[in-house]
Amino acid sequence: MRRTDPLLMEVARGDREADKVLRGGRVINVFTRSIDEADVAIVGDRIAGIGRYDGAEIFELDGAFIAPGFIDAHMHVESTMLPPSGFAELALPHGTTAAIFDPHEIANVLGIPGIRLLLQDAADVPLDCFFAASSCVPASPLETSGAVLGVEALKELLNEPDIIALAEMMNYPGVVHGDGEVLQKVAAGLAHGVVDGHCPELTGAPLQAYVAAGISSDHESTRPEEAMEKLAAGLWLYIREGSAARNLEALLPVVSPENAHRICFCTDDRHPADLRDQGHIDHVVRKAIGLGLDPVLAICMASLHPAVHFRLPDHGAIAAGRFANLVVFDDLKEPSPRETWHHGTRVTDWAAPRPGTDWSSARGTVHLPPELNERSFRMEGHSGTARVIGLVTGELVTEDLRREAPVDNGLVIADPDRDLLKIAVIERHGHGGDIGLGLVEGFGLRGGAIASTVGHDAHNLAVVGDNDGDMLIAAKALGEVGGGQCVVAQGEVLAVLPLPIAGLMSDELPERVIEQQRALLAAAASLGCSHGDPFMPLSFLPLSVIPHLKVSDQGIVDVDRFQIVDLLVSD
Amino acid sequence: MRRTDPLLMEVARGDREADKVLRGGRVINVFTRSIDEADVAIVGDRIAGIGRYDGAEIFELDGAFIAPGFIDAHMHVESTMLPPSGFAELALPHGTTAAIFDPHEIANVLGIPGIRLLLQDAADVPLDCFFAASSCVPASPLETSGAVLGVEALKELLNEPDIIALAEMMNYPGVVHGDGEVLQKVAAGLAHGVVDGHCPELTGAPLQAYVAAGISSDHESTRPEEAMEKLAAGLWLYIREGSAARNLEALLPVVSPENAHRICFCTDDRHPADLRDQGHIDHVVRKAIGLGLDPVLAICMASLHPAVHFRLPDHGAIAAGRFANLVVFDDLKEPSPRETWHHGTRVTDWAAPRPGTDWSSARGTVHLPPELNERSFRMEGHSGTARVIGLVTGELVTEDLRREAPVDNGLVIADPDRDLLKIAVIERHGHGGDIGLGLVEGFGLRGGAIASTVGHDAHNLAVVGDNDGDMLIAAKALGEVGGGQCVVAQGEVLAVLPLPIAGLMSDELPERVIEQQRALLAAAASLGCSHGDPFMPLSFLPLSVIPHLKVSDQGIVDVDRFQIVDLLVSD
Repeated sequence: MRRTDPLLMEVARGDREADKVLRGGRVINVFTRSIDEADVAIVGDRIAGIGRYDGAEIFELDGAFIAPGFIDAHMHVESTMLPPSGFAELALPHGTTAAIFDPHEIANVLGIPGIRLLLQDAADVPLDCFFAASSCVPASPLETSGAVLGVEALKELLNEPDIIALAEMMNYPGVVHGDGEVLQKVAAGLAHGVVDGHCPELTGAPLQAYVAAGISSDHESTRPEEAMEKLAAGLWLYIREGSAARNLEALLPVVSPENAHRICFCTDDRHPADLRDQGHIDHVVRKAIGLGLDPVLAICMASLHPAVHFRLPDHGAIAAGRFANLVVFDDLKEPSPRETWHHGTRVTDWAAPRPGTDWSSARGTVHLPPELNERSFRMEGHSGTARVIGLVTGELVTEDLRREAPVDNGLVIADPDRDLLKIAVIERHGHGGDIGLGLVEGFGLRGGAIASTVGHDAHNLAVVGDNDGDMLIAAKALGEVGGGQCVVAQGEVLAVLPLPIAGLMSDELPERVIEQQRALLAAAASLGCSHGDPFMPLSFLPLSVIPHLKVSDQGIVDVDRFQIVDLLVSD
Repeated sequence: MRRTDPLLMEVARGDREADKVLRGGRVINVFTRSIDEADVAIVGDRIAGIGRYDGAEIFELDGAFIAPGFIDAHMHVESTMLPPSGFAELALPHGTTAAIFDPHEIANVLGIPGIRLLLQDAADVPLDCFFAASSCVPASPLETSGAVLGVEALKELLNEPDIIALAEMMNYPGVVHGDGEVLQKVAAGLAHGVVDGHCPELTGAPLQAYVAAGISSDHESTRPEEAMEKLAAGLWLYIREGSAARNLEALLPVVSPENAHRICFCTDDRHPADLRDQGHIDHVVRKAIGLGLDPVLAICMASLHPAVHFRLPDHGAIAAGRFANLVVFDDLKEPSPRETWHHGTRVTDWAAPRPGTDWSSARGTVHLPPELNERSFRMEGHSGTARVIGLVTGELVTEDLRREAPVDNGLVIADPDRDLLKIAVIERHGHGGDIGLGLVEGFGLRGGAIASTVGHDAHNLAVVGDNDGDMLIAAKALGEVGGGQCVVAQGEVLAVLPLPIAGLMSDELPERVIEQQRALLAAAASLGCSHGDPFMPLSFLPLSVIPHLKVSDQGIVDVDRFQIVDLLVSD
């Protein structure tokens, strides 16, 4: 919240020297969408004034551009496999100074205590981490999560000062049909702030119903017509460009000076190597400019607009009284931050102090059934037609395929020659140890297994392989390291990326995590995996709210009928 | 605050008939700044959806335009001489469905109880009346007000649900120089919402200091350069076009599609006859369009933009879930509302129920000194040079003139041949009955006096005349009716406009008040007044914070030196 500090006014009016002055820069003005040549005077963590100023420390910018620090309107920090402090290490060099996190993944594993750990880790990070209360934990009754967030839990969260919104209300059918508990969650969110949305392909009257509930944003648009309809209906449009889903190119034609005041950027999910190598919101800004968007407008969408939407008057602009969250860069056509300032301090190369947060209460979250053995992966069955999950390259949606079941000795088995592999999803929260089993086509691996405790949204342990022995070894390997991702071939663990924080994140140095992931992907490729990152589809196969065929710890899920179905289709 | 109502969703998604449907209109979309052909479905007080809908009642629009109801971002409702209910009677036919009132005038007379009376009167009016807590009561220590609002009083007010902002912080020197109490008031406002500004001609470093305090708007710009600098500094620009001050034509060149998202309209002060005959915000919209502004952009500035600034998510747009506050008109080039809808009901011709609010506690606020007589107006003095207040046509600023004092028998007297009249400001709140006396040039009246208990901002009784007898009669006439405005000639009261509510407003029918005011102005004209409305300058002559020479109950005020000065200039 904005303060009123007499010292700030003293410096602003010129009666006292500033602490620091960024001199001679070209300041991006997001209010007027123009560029002003001016100094930026800083006192403490705030901007005192824009104009001509003297300061104890002068930073000559020699005509470089200064923009407000970038804001990610919506992301799951767990997707970076790092907690907020680790994320910040990678994001600060890219000019990100604020983000709105939906801590949805850790909430599914650990509930409110998990969210509080992220809040605690974020507290001393030089990047303003705002949180939204995760609205749909679990995402569906067809999977077993580690925790449940009901209406009262959400109310408790929404009372926290750093929790500024109800996070993406993914249960859009529930909203549209006026489900009582869902509407109570929305009402709780509205009582405290903004309620973010998530309504892929929702259109016409159902979209009107979703907006009528009070939900005010969406980041799931993939087509221009969809985005235009949502904007017109009153939803803020977040254009998503992350690692998993990339919608910028498709949606950019929608943006105009007339409607940009309602448009932000977000990444949703961002993998650590992409974050380091390509960037974060700066990458989206550069790409948008490359695709033809006016650079100043792109920066407005990356700064002021999310600050307006989330009612953050201290953020989003270079203006007196706001936090001195700034990005300095040289080329307006391709803004590559050379300096990032947070609360008046240069933090471009910030490194988190170590040891940092005590994560002990988030460790040991992988509780495999004690009796887990090779037989646990057996699927009994005789010849016939099987339901097979068909991967679709680059999408989370799967196909609901029919294939002749590969059967051996009364068991349905994998058939790598036809790229038919077995998949198991093992409940890992100590809530019964159920195992769902099925067949999947499209991974292309042979002679091994891959496994992951990142398995949206309940984050059970998902393992895919062509033989039960390697699948068991993979699952147990993750049990031993407390979660993560691994590759097993012919009885041997080839690579492990440990993610001991809730089975989702690592407290290793970000560089180390990126290296571990690189080795992991190389090992997966050695099995012949046809995907650059097979853990991406693997981690979304348990998500029982994305069409069409999925598998959870409860079994094979026909998402369209929203029920558990048998492996074999009865004739 | 936005509700979540299952019924609304049922209608929105098409499973239930709407209560009312406005069919076949052209809907102004303020998000995308475009026009969509669609039905607007209403349930209760809300919009259920935009699209194709059926309803129990169908209102065929046959291609008429529908815009969101207009919002006045800043006005003093007392300037209409009517309480909120009376104001609404005149404003609703003009499409106003919400206004942010600064109840500054009644606050100076009656303090918090006065504000509460306005809140009470506004509560059942079919026009959403939001209030801002008046930040500067009194406006200056050089005048005696009826009440004082300190920091604690403002905090109390800001806790009221309908009080959504701290009203215009007029003490901009206090802000810029970091005055402790002033900053405490700003801080109290920021803790609850928006802090509106008022900083005429503030520029450069002092403007940066004003913004640094957290103040986020200004409505005092008169020049394009001034408006551009304030926008760039981060202040929302309210373009004011009222009865007293009219800045639209000067400021319109500033507006562009790039910066309009930060611009609103306001009237500040609006006289009842102007309100009825010319209009309210609709008048500003029409005038802006006539001056070349895009009609849809003009409507955005009259609806969505103030709703965004004041964080009113139920207002400012035709969108599902928001209040059904609508304006229907036929000509986009000249939007003249033919229907106004408030909370789902057509209220174009609404009349306040009578009797309405019980104003008894706001009556009897004119406490003239018991000993008031002709001698009270005497100014002793011998020949010499006198300070004379010089009126400037159409402005609140006055000139600090020097004239040879008209002296008779040891008294400084009026000299109507030189248009030098006497002015007296009589403390009328029962706080001592001080009388300030001076000379004024520019009224042009002869053979009488005019008086008013509307006397910004302390609202003492101001009387101007060429003889003490008529001045006394005028003052006493207002004392008898409990406040108002009157004209006296040669011992006879020619006309009285009674304003018995705090000496500022009338609870008569608006038409009656307009008629009384017409008769009053005709009577003033019969005295030879050279101003169309001499009560306009009269009511601002006591305002000790507007340059250059003024008069309060404390005496003649040299505003530039901010002190009381003598009538006669010592040689």
